Amino acid sequence: MKRRLLLVSNSTLHGGGYLDHFHCSPLVLFVPYALHDRDAYTKTARDKFTSLGYELNGIHEALDPVSAVRKAEAIFIGGGNTFRLLKSLYDNELVTEIKRRVLEDGVPYMGSSAGTNVATVSINTTNDMPIVYPPSFSAIGLVPFNINPHYLDQDPKSRHMGETREQRITQYHEEPDTPCVLGLREGSMLLVEGNTATLLGTTSARLFTRMGPGDGEL
Amino acid sequence: MKRRLLLVSNSTLHGGGYLDHFHCSPLVLFVPYALHDRDAYTKTARDKFTSLGYELNGIHEALDPVSAVRKAEAIFIGGGNTFRLLKSLYDNELVTEIKRRVLEDGVPYMGSSAGTNVATVSINTTNDMPIVYPPSFSAIGLVPFNINPHYLDQDPKSRHMGETREQRITQYHEEPDTPCVLGLREGSMLLVEGNTATLLGTTSARLFTRMGPGDGEL
Repeated sequence: MKRRLLLVSNSTLHGGGYLDHFHCSPLVLFVPYALHDRDAYTKTARDKFTSLGYELNGIHEALDPVSAVRKAEAIFIGGGNTFRLLKSLYDNELVTEIKRRVLEDGVPYMGSSAGTNVATVSINTTNDMPIVYPPSFSAIGLVPFNINPHYLDQDPKSRHMGETREQRITQYHEEPDTPCVLGLREGSMLLVEGNTATLLGTTSARLFTRMGPGDGEL
Repeated sequence: MKRRLLLVSNSTLHGGGYLDHFHCSPLVLFVPYALHDRDAYTKTARDKFTSLGYELNGIHEALDPVSAVRKAEAIFIGGGNTFRLLKSLYDNELVTEIKRRVLEDGVPYMGSSAGTNVATVSINTTNDMPIVYPPSFSAIGLVPFNINPHYLDQDPKSRHMGETREQRITQYHEEPDTPCVLGLREGSMLLVEGNTATLLGTTSARLFTRMGPGDGEL
């Protein structure tokens, strides 16, 4: 499998600086759907990528987004709201096309935060507020597990009564047929090359499995 | 309108101690759908309510949940996961029936956390992880606005890169036709009697309107 992915925990444009992991200088197709102001988001992304020596086009600038994906040399999906992002991917009929390009044609894929969520099995483990209703929580499925970006360890001093991140993921695993979840701390990212996944960064990650006792630090 | 609601910010069983707001001693129908172990949750709730002098039955113990709602003297929906709760309400065809009983028959309704979310227009402003896919985000609609329970003010010392609660609600209001959102801090609750809503507790609340400048402390 030609798969080349870089899945970053952090928000918005982190990940751009890591294009050199792919050892090429592609024209990048940027997907700004996770934020409301697509023009402003694309301008910020373009400024950053230009300074790094890459060209970048916003997918919303294309007349036909499916055709833009068919021609893309690399795809970068930025962070923001995961529900808004996935709904727009479905509304523009891009989920299947991105999957095909990345898994069959080997087009490099980068995702930050929400862009990492949509690369996995489903968005069931996003931290975002469900501000819009997508037609499904199933995502692009570039890897056979889920990721929880911005993974936060419990603060023993917190008096807040909302569930901890660990409790939330455990509740997910109470549901049937749920995949593993990689809790990816800010500062970490996952590089996937073919069937090999390498954890990069300094903060490491925590893997949650449905059976519970298999949980572990990576 | 006979509406009598007590909508509590905090998790799980908070709210039980406040039944005296309703000046009656009803047999309470408890809805434990937001947690996985419905028996254990109902036992905890029953122990607490019994100590306060109230009788309580779990809706999942009834052969026909719709009929249980039709006979209920008071309804208490406990906290947990909002997506799981709303999906179960739809699966058991209870959304319309609870709305009718509360708005037409004046049956008192209490909700904690997720039970507060489902009492509003929609669950678009829950903090919970979307661990299951409900058939809609539209909720019971006992009030014409949304609530964000466990509302958290921004921590100026935080270095976490996830969105603040304020940013999340602002993103919701970037979407068309979105109602006001009451950010209800832990320790606060809203008592609704007819067309009058009274904020109780010591921590107050923050009201977000779609236009932005109308935001204010309550």
